[in-house]
Amino acid sequence: MKKIVAIIRPEKLKAIIKALEDVGYSGLMITEIEGHGKQRGIVQQWRGEKYKVEFLPKRKIEIICKEDDTEKIVQTLIQSARTGEIGDGKIFISEVIDAIRIRTGERGDSVL
Amino acid sequence: MKKIVAIIRPEKLKAIIKALEDVGYSGLMITEIEGHGKQRGIVQQWRGEKYKVEFLPKRKIEIICKEDDTEKIVQTLIQSARTGEIGDGKIFISEVIDAIRIRTGERGDSVL
Amino acid sequence: MKKIVAIIRPEKLKAIIKALEDVGYSGLMITEIEGHGKQRGIVQQWRGEKYKVEFLPKRKIEIICKEDDTEKIVQTLIQSARTGEIGDGKIFISEVIDAIRIRTGERGDSVL
Ligand SMILES: Nc1ncnc2c1ncn2[C@@H]1O[C@H](COP(=O)(O)OP(=O)(O)OP(=O)(O)O)[C@@H](O)[C@H]1O
Ligand SMILES: Nc1ncnc2c1ncn2[C@@H]1O[C@H](COP(=O)(O)OP(=O)(O)OP(=O)(O)O)[C@@H](O)[C@H]1O
Ligand SMILES: Nc1ncnc2c1ncn2[C@@H]1O[C@H](COP(=O)(O)OP(=O)(O)OP(=O)(O)O)[C@@H](O)[C@H]1O
Ligand SMILES: [Mg+2]
Ligand SMILES: [Mg+2]
Ligand SMILES: [Mg+2]
Repeated sequence: MKKIVAIIRPEKLKAIIKALEDVGYSGLMITEIEGHGKQRGIVQQWRGEKYKVEFLPKRKIEIICKEDDTEKIVQTLIQSARTGEIGDGKIFISEVIDAIRIRTGERGDSVL
Repeated sequence: MKKIVAIIRPEKLKAIIKALEDVGYSGLMITEIEGHGKQRGIVQQWRGEKYKVEFLPKRKIEIICKEDDTEKIVQTLIQSARTGEIGDGKIFISEVIDAIRIRTGERGDSVL
Repeated sequence: MKKIVAIIRPEKLKAIIKALEDVGYSGLMITEIEGHGKQRGIVQQWRGEKYKVEFLPKRKIEIICKEDDTEKIVQTLIQSARTGEIGDGKIFISEVIDAIRIRTGERGDSVL
């Protein structure tokens, strides 16, 4: 199994979830995070004053998937999250050993 | 070391933490997340209007544990988080390489 | 690639980020979490009543980094997060397989 973590623009969340459902993926977790990246140096104006935005509100989407679905989900995320402008976000992939459905105690790929 | 992640019903949080303490585990992280799963299609009523619940408030519990404690903790989580109804949540297990106590710089199993 | 997760005191966040930038690391995620550890038993007073603090507000910092930068980042975190008092927090290290920049589709170390 793999875990796919995508850091995305908050305004893209709904479109991304719809795109994932369209390819058959509905199980995911959403966390509100603050991002801090190379994008941080952006200078904005507010009430006439310039200030540097240090922390950007982002959403973290986490999907645990079957080995063979990884690439399809990554491509779906890239296509639905991209605007082409600086700040579209990043995707990280890591290994997951097992998944368990609490209600039944069931384990493995069928839980996903 | 292993990381155990449990996505649970918010109302079960206290009982789960008590159950973990009873088997000797007190170190954990709690994050408020929004879940989106096969449970999402639930139709509820509010002020006379029917609407589809898309995002469900869940809690994510993360526990980093010694290899040999993994199964005991998983069983404790299953038993204390289960109601038997749809929506009891899931558990995911992955590998952790090292743990460090910031105060002392100490590393390894004794940090957990 | 490695993922470094640090559970820290909220009041240390700014100093830690500055320390990371000073060694060349600006990409990270920040999540508000509630911690529950051996520190939980602290007894505090509020309006004359004693009560046990069960959940402590903490910040979780996550950094995905190149293999060779892991130790430098861990040392920077330890030095900037430490007060020497109980409750300085913990660091966990795990493996990451790949990273992708959504805007370009680019993969691997250069994304970090
Ligand atoms: N190395 C990293 N580790 C953890 N999180 C990161 C890392 N790099 C970036 N992030 C997260 O991803 C978000 C976006 O990162 P950043 O602005 O640096 O690049 P990008 O927006 O993905 O790329 P670009 O702006 O070039 O299209 C950041 O706000 C941060 O939360
Ligand atoms: N594949 C997945 N990846 C990440 N998070 C998931 C995944 N599947 C489920 N989740 C998370 O777990 C929560 C519960 O999932 P879901 O409703 O699909 O099944 P369940 O409630 O665990 O099982 P059941 O309802 O059959 O007892 C979801 O709200 C979601 O946050
Ligand atoms: N085994 C663990 N798994 C997940 N999170 C943990 C674990 N142990 C500790 N934590 C998190 O780290 C935070 C700090 O932990 P704890 O108070 O036990 O030790 P510490 O403060 O790191 O060490 P000390 O107080 O001895 O300096 C906790 O609030 C909790 O969120
Ligand atoms: Mg950027
Ligand atoms: Mg369900
Ligand atoms: Mg402590």
